[in-house]
Amino acid sequence: MSAIDGGRKRVKLDDVARAAGLSLATVSRALGGYSDIALGTRERVARLAEEMGYRPSSRAQSLASGGRSGLARCAVVSLGSDPEQLTRSLFSGVLLSGMAARAAAERMDLHLVSLAQEPAAWGRALAALHAADRADGLLLLTFLGLEPEHVASLEDAGVPYVLVNRHFGERPVHCVTVDYGGANERLAQHLVGLGHRRMALLAPADDSSTVSDHLRGWRRGLERCGIDEADAPIVRFRGPHHEAGYAWGERLLRAGLPGGGGRPTAIVGFNDFVAHGVLRAAAQMGVAVPDALSVVGFNNLVARYTSPPLCSHEFHLPEVGAAAVSLLAAVMRGEVQEATRRTIEPAFVCRGSCGPAPA
Amino acid sequence: MSAIDGGRKRVKLDDVARAAGLSLATVSRALGGYSDIALGTRERVARLAEEMGYRPSSRAQSLASGGRSGLARCAVVSLGSDPEQLTRSLFSGVLLSGMAARAAAERMDLHLVSLAQEPAAWGRALAALHAADRADGLLLLTFLGLEPEHVASLEDAGVPYVLVNRHFGERPVHCVTVDYGGANERLAQHLVGLGHRRMALLAPADDSSTVSDHLRGWRRGLERCGIDEADAPIVRFRGPHHEAGYAWGERLLRAGLPGGGGRPTAIVGFNDFVAHGVLRAAAQMGVAVPDALSVVGFNNLVARYTSPPLCSHEFHLPEVGAAAVSLLAAVMRGEVQEATRRTIEPAFVCRGSCGPAPA
Repeated sequence: MSAIDGGRKRVKLDDVARAAGLSLATVSRALGGYSDIALGTRERVARLAEEMGYRPSSRAQSLASGGRSGLARCAVVSLGSDPEQLTRSLFSGVLLSGMAARAAAERMDLHLVSLAQEPAAWGRALAALHAADRADGLLLLTFLGLEPEHVASLEDAGVPYVLVNRHFGERPVHCVTVDYGGANERLAQHLVGLGHRRMALLAPADDSSTVSDHLRGWRRGLERCGIDEADAPIVRFRGPHHEAGYAWGERLLRAGLPGGGGRPTAIVGFNDFVAHGVLRAAAQMGVAVPDALSVVGFNNLVARYTSPPLCSHEFHLPEVGAAAVSLLAAVMRGEVQEATRRTIEPAFVCRGSCGPAPA
Repeated sequence: MSAIDGGRKRVKLDDVARAAGLSLATVSRALGGYSDIALGTRERVARLAEEMGYRPSSRAQSLASGGRSGLARCAVVSLGSDPEQLTRSLFSGVLLSGMAARAAAERMDLHLVSLAQEPAAWGRALAALHAADRADGLLLLTFLGLEPEHVASLEDAGVPYVLVNRHFGERPVHCVTVDYGGANERLAQHLVGLGHRRMALLAPADDSSTVSDHLRGWRRGLERCGIDEADAPIVRFRGPHHEAGYAWGERLLRAGLPGGGGRPTAIVGFNDFVAHGVLRAAAQMGVAVPDALSVVGFNNLVARYTSPPLCSHEFHLPEVGAAAVSLLAAVMRGEVQEATRRTIEPAFVCRGSCGPAPA
């Protein structure tokens, strides 16, 4: 049984709540037959829902009626294939461990779905996933950019979903994100505080909210310290992260900042893999870290294994995963009414690859 | 609806096949109504199955009759919690990426289940998982030891399952494993070929098939080269892997092999995390790698990020995950009749942390 009736827009719980003049949570509990809602209200809501043609998903019904497993079925959907296979595996693995650990507490069966299609096909693939009744709620994960049009079919069908590690900027959407912007802003200030006046941030040319957040935060940090971006440019790269880190590290240390700005005394990598490439270039060229060059990474996945161990940012990915599961559960239970963004603060982990600027 | 009738042993497809004198694949296809099986055979098998009380799982029936999603529901069950959280996350993440990538091709919905209980409670937890009809097949994953008694309830209920990265030694079971034994045997021979005569293998004191395979392979390699184990002992450790690698590396380099055997010229770590600890100890003590000490790791998860980059063993974990999904699918389709073990060969990746023994 499909949850989509041809092209007709599905009546959402939200619509029923508005018509009833009640909160989403109350309507949800009324339809669920909870005894803390007055019997009269329960009957009124049930009548209204029926008149409006509201149909909870078959599984939600089974849940409400104490169905066979009592577990909501949700999918962790990985969208698009990623050339950085290792990055993806390490990053997602840690994230998934947090999701799996939280799922039981939220009475949720989490399944894994890989949709390797190109972004243009995501909307259709997501709609098909829901139409096949394979998931009552979705956690969306991708290493590429995610745009509102990709999830329009889910909106139309009233399917609950939460973006993991992605957001839509000003446009409200349920999502759990990492505050890359704040971390970059603080990092730029920290490095300036250590005396650095020529720096570079190496970031991929991708068009994702993660990359935009990094760039925005870095620029805000520079602005706060009165540093011109020409002295601390953002270098955008394409291709494998570890190779880009090495190639750009070598180039910046040899030829200086773009535009004849002299050799940088601090280089920040978009993630640990990029920063490790910079460390390799520095070692090869005999540039001492941190005495002659400070290097900082993000994600803390391999930072402790490099030499010197990288200063990096711990994203608390298990917490991100767990928060996403709990947010989706709250949305499905009707407890969350407005589009909600939960943000996890990264922690700067200083290990000795950054220090005062050389005299 | 539970698939277990009280304590009564469930009739398996295998039993029907034996009674019919047909192969499991033929019986499976006959019951599935496939037209390549003669109508008479289909009818005979259906009658026999009914007489014997054979009941396919509700979902398998729904699949056979072109049910709503046409997908088998299988669970990746992670058993027990693991103190080495990072190891687990990185390792499992890469494994899961391979499973997720293969699931669609095998028409399988894969869901994640964490059972954090102690080993003594696994049997009951697994039985409950199946009894709740949450999975038609299971992929079992743990970082602890797995014993036949843990899966006895699955055997009794006729639930298809595949062990991932675990086996039961001589006792047949469906499993996908990595040939740690062969890799260690070849490694010991390789190191002896490079002139090393005093070596150590650092392995955890855990009691898992992975650890046993490592030990067996190492001993077989020494035997083949005529090296006494006193000159190349296996040091069993407890506690966090990276700390044990550092502590034992430091101790062996300072005090020599247990029993006054002199300083080893090669140390092998059970995984990259252990080997990285040895590298740290060597760096701290000014022991040059690989000139004065060869260091080798396993799993290749962080080997490229250490300094010097570690010689390690690539386990092809995505392949392991994909093979496990395909084996489970074949078992569920009745195509695999005997307990089957698929073994993935690790590849030695030489990067420069091992070399000839010092003169």
